[in-house]
Order: sequence, then C-alpha cells, then structure tokens
Amino acid sequence: MNERDALRALAADLPHAGDDAAVVDGTVITTDMLHERTDFPPGTTRYTAGWRAVGASLSDVAATGAAASAAVAVYADAAFDREALDRFVAGAVDVCEAVDAEYVGGDLDEHVEFTTATTAIGRVTDAGPVTRGGARPGDALCVTGEWGRSAAALRLFERGDEASVERANELFRFTPRVADGLALAGTATAMMDSSDGLARSCHQLAEASGAGIELNRDALPVHPAVDEVADGDGERFELAAHFGEDFELLCAVPETALPTVSEECPAGLTRIGTVVEESDDEESPRVVADGDSLPDRGFTHGGE
Amino acid sequence: MNERDALRALAADLPHAGDDAAVVDGTVITTDMLHERTDFPPGTTRYTAGWRAVGASLSDVAATGAAASAAVAVYADAAFDREALDRFVAGAVDVCEAVDAEYVGGDLDEHVEFTTATTAIGRVTDAGPVTRGGARPGDALCVTGEWGRSAAALRLFERGDEASVERANELFRFTPRVADGLALAGTATAMMDSSDGLARSCHQLAEASGAGIELNRDALPVHPAVDEVADGDGERFELAAHFGEDFELLCAVPETALPTVSEECPAGLTRIGTVVEESDDEESPRVVADGDSLPDRGFTHGGE
Repeated sequence: MNERDALRALAADLPHAGDDAAVVDGTVITTDMLHERTDFPPGTTRYTAGWRAVGASLSDVAATGAAASAAVAVYADAAFDREALDRFVAGAVDVCEAVDAEYVGGDLDEHVEFTTATTAIGRVTDAGPVTRGGARPGDALCVTGEWGRSAAALRLFERGDEASVERANELFRFTPRVADGLALAGTATAMMDSSDGLARSCHQLAEASGAGIELNRDALPVHPAVDEVADGDGERFELAAHFGEDFELLCAVPETALPTVSEECPAGLTRIGTVVEESDDEESPRVVADGDSLPDRGFTHGGE
Repeated sequence: MNERDALRALAADLPHAGDDAAVVDGTVITTDMLHERTDFPPGTTRYTAGWRAVGASLSDVAATGAAASAAVAVYADAAFDREALDRFVAGAVDVCEAVDAEYVGGDLDEHVEFTTATTAIGRVTDAGPVTRGGARPGDALCVTGEWGRSAAALRLFERGDEASVERANELFRFTPRVADGLALAGTATAMMDSSDGLARSCHQLAEASGAGIELNRDALPVHPAVDEVADGDGERFELAAHFGEDFELLCAVPETALPTVSEECPAGLTRIGTVVEESDDEESPRVVADGDSLPDRGFTHGGE
C-alpha cells in the first residue's frame, strides 16, 4: 500500500480525516512530520527548517479559515547541538509571530535522521470551518499568492553557491496564509492548501465537492523565482502547477463575492478558473486546463 | 548536549515549556515522539503502540487537570501495511474513548523505523491548569494507581513466550489518568505525570515548587506484575520508583482536602509522603526516602 492509498484508508475510517485539519468543538488541529532526507535539502538552515515545518501546520489551519492559536514541535536528531536547536526554535517562534500565533515548545527525541513533527491548533470563527467539499458550479476558482516558490528553491539549493542557497532559504520561509484564510472564511465555499501542488489540489477539491474544474493556465500567478530556474514555458507551468510543496490557498468563491474578498486577502487573490458541473461521463476529465485534461499527478523530472 | 540539557535550554527560552503541557487561551496542548527501537519492544502489537503513544500525550493533558478533547498522530513506517495501520488507529481510537476524547486522524510518512508523533489537546476547567510548581510545605504527596507496570511489561516482553507477551501488551495499555486529573484540579497544588519515574518526577516537582520531599518507600503502591518479575525487595522498589515510563500522576494535596479528593479519583489516590521546606543547605538532599537521599536518576540495570 502506498502513502496515498494509506491516507485514503485512514480517511475512510475517521470522520475528520481528509480535510487539511480536523475540527473538534471549534478547535482546529493538524499535524505533520518532515525529515532531513526528503524535506530539507542540503543548505537548509535550522532556522528555515523550524519556520517551514511549523509553517506547514499553520498552513493547514489557514486552509480551514480559522485563526491560528499555537504550535508545538518535536525536534529529533542524532545529537543535540544547542545552536542548531536554538535556531530551529527561533524559526518556529518567528513563523508563529507572523500569523499571530504562539510557539509553545514541544518535545526532544534522539533519532538517526533530523526529523520534526509539528502540530498547530486554531480557533474556528463564527463563519465556521471551510472544507474541501463545498464548491458549487459557477464558483470562481481562486488562489492566493504566487506559485512555484519551493520548486524554484530546490533548484537554487542544487546550485549550491552561497547566494543561491541564501535565496533558496528565503523562498522556503513562506508566510502561512492565515490572514487570507480568515478573510475567505464565510465566503469561500471550499478551500485547501496547496502542499500537493495545484494539479493534485484541484483534483482533490473537485472530487470532494462532486464537481469539475476548468482552469486557465495563463492566469496562474507564477513566482518570479521560477523564471530564474525554469527551462521554457512548459517547465515553468510544470514547476508552478505540479511540483507542490508550496503553501498557498486554493479556494472556490461565489463570483459575486469575488471583488470584495479579493481586496481583503493580503497575499492577493487571483481567479484561475471556474468550478463546473460534474460530468456524467466517467471517461471525461475532472480537471481541464485550456481544454486539455490536467492530470492528477505531482512533479515529473524533465518537464512535460 | 544531552537530551535533558537540551530540554532545559528549551524550557528557559519558552514561557510554556517545562510543564507537561502548554496552555494557550484555555487549550492545553502537548506532543511526544516514540520509536520502535526505544519505545516498542519486540512483541508490542500495533494496537498497543497506537494506544500507548496516544495515551502518553493524553497523560500529559491529565497532568494539567484538564479535560481531554482530541488527539492526532503521525504514523511513519518503511512501508504501509493496511492491517498494521488499522490496528494502530484502533488502539488510538480506543485510548481516546477511554478518556472521553476523540481521535481525529493525522498524517502518514515514510520512515526507516516505525515512529509515531502524537499530540493531544484538552480544555482547562474553571479551576485553571495545575502546574508542577505550586506544592507547599505540609501538603501530602500522593500518587494515582499502581507503579511499575512498564518495567514489569518489559521483563515480560523479554521472556518472549506468547502468554508473557500478551500480558506485557496489556500492561503497556495504561488508562491515562484524565478522570483523576479532573478530580484533582482545583485541589492539587502541584501535579505532573510520572513518565520519568517516581524519583525523577519527585525531584522535578520539588525543584519547580522550591520545596523538599520526604517519602515513605513502603507506602508506594506497586503493581502486582512487578512481584512476578522482580528479584527481591530492592529490585521491586527500583522497578517501581526509578524505571519510569509509567503514566500515573504525582501530586501535592493539602492534607485537609485529602479524604474527599481521594474518593473522587477512579484510579485511587495514595499518600506516599509529605512536601517539606526547602533546605538552606545546598548539600542536603531535595528528596529523601525513609531518611536516605533518593537520587535523581532513572533505571539502573541490576537493581540498586
């Protein structure tokens, strides 16, 4: 069983699984684990790792339209270096401050590989939590911010020179979209974060909502750093739409509400498509970009 | 830097670290990581692992005197076996049900070694959270339940025969003392759970409270399973008081309140000593058992 099948199995058993975060009595809770080998490329500072790991959980809180309250982290490593730990905590504290949450500590553990497990909690507003499952045909499909930051960062980490690595670390330290999620709560009919990439996220939101999606590729706001590293337009879209590990919000918004809510999102809100009726034909694609099927897949090395 | 020093460094930097759980706006949050190599001996079922891992976090909630609300877990393994995952989730669900909390899912991750990171949240009662730091001279020092379960379980796991392993699994599946913690909230002046063992926990509670402790060894309620595995009285006390990884509560209670609150603790509350004035003499031991210094240490193989 691969991780995706296992997650589906888990979601089938538990009422709250499947969305970015669970909601219990108005409290949102979400947890993630990140590892050095898979999540922190060589050159990632411990400050960036702390920021990014805690940020990933705060992003899940943001995706429910809740206010972030607090975060904790388990910090596991083969040895405890005081300076490395201090830098990790500083990153965790700073990303919490960026979204008006509080970093309240955690646990330490010995581990063969640097590993961190982070949990964030938040409070649902009076508007209630936003899930992935409420998008309606006719809704505008929108995204916050600019896409492809993490893909660009990885290319820059690979270059290895000091300036590239420093820039890569900056790109890795995203601002969780808590303020935008709060602005969208009560208006967005469906919302999720984009950690699996635009393509997969569109499929998940459409499937959860029992709807289809039509996208306009050129409308996707691509981060300028992607242009520095991409080899042509095909790879540019590949990095921005399939790579994933960005932490922007993808949401569906009733068309009439779009002008007002757009102004309230500090990261900017861009319409990239439309939610459409689910097709009766099982063969027809659920997500279409410029008339072609947009496959439900992550990054493929070498572009399209 | 070893783990203890690192934890102290972390506690110095963060206002909420040091106690069993952090409290933010009335919500208690606590997180732990457990590994196959160090925490789940051969023979531990995945059901027991799910119960115990989530139970460890619920125990931290109990130690603050809060009501447990929910728990999440990250489940990381080299491969995802559906049955193993289902059993883990079943254990997590059941331990949550045992304390009126809800297991609401979590995250999956690929990892070289079976590893789980659990987080539990709870709600503080009107009595407010109980910390380690409020014990006053004259208070009765008390414990819930019976001590040495995990030490006995480990010996039984080592025996390896089917009946011993089954019994060991049962001992590993403790009931987090949430109901007892709630009964003690508002009455206990200081409280913590006993995951580091009685001796270390006494030192921590005394230090946080700026007090000393005088214990009566014979008063400690020892789990009957310890008698099955211990080699004599010395080892019996060693396993019950130093081994740790039990999840009972240690607390200080004003003497006058003891009769009433004892009746309200479902796991039973036993007085094992008294909180005393802190000595001015730095050489004098902080924790004394039957007149001798009780060292601030965990288990030593081979007894005393």
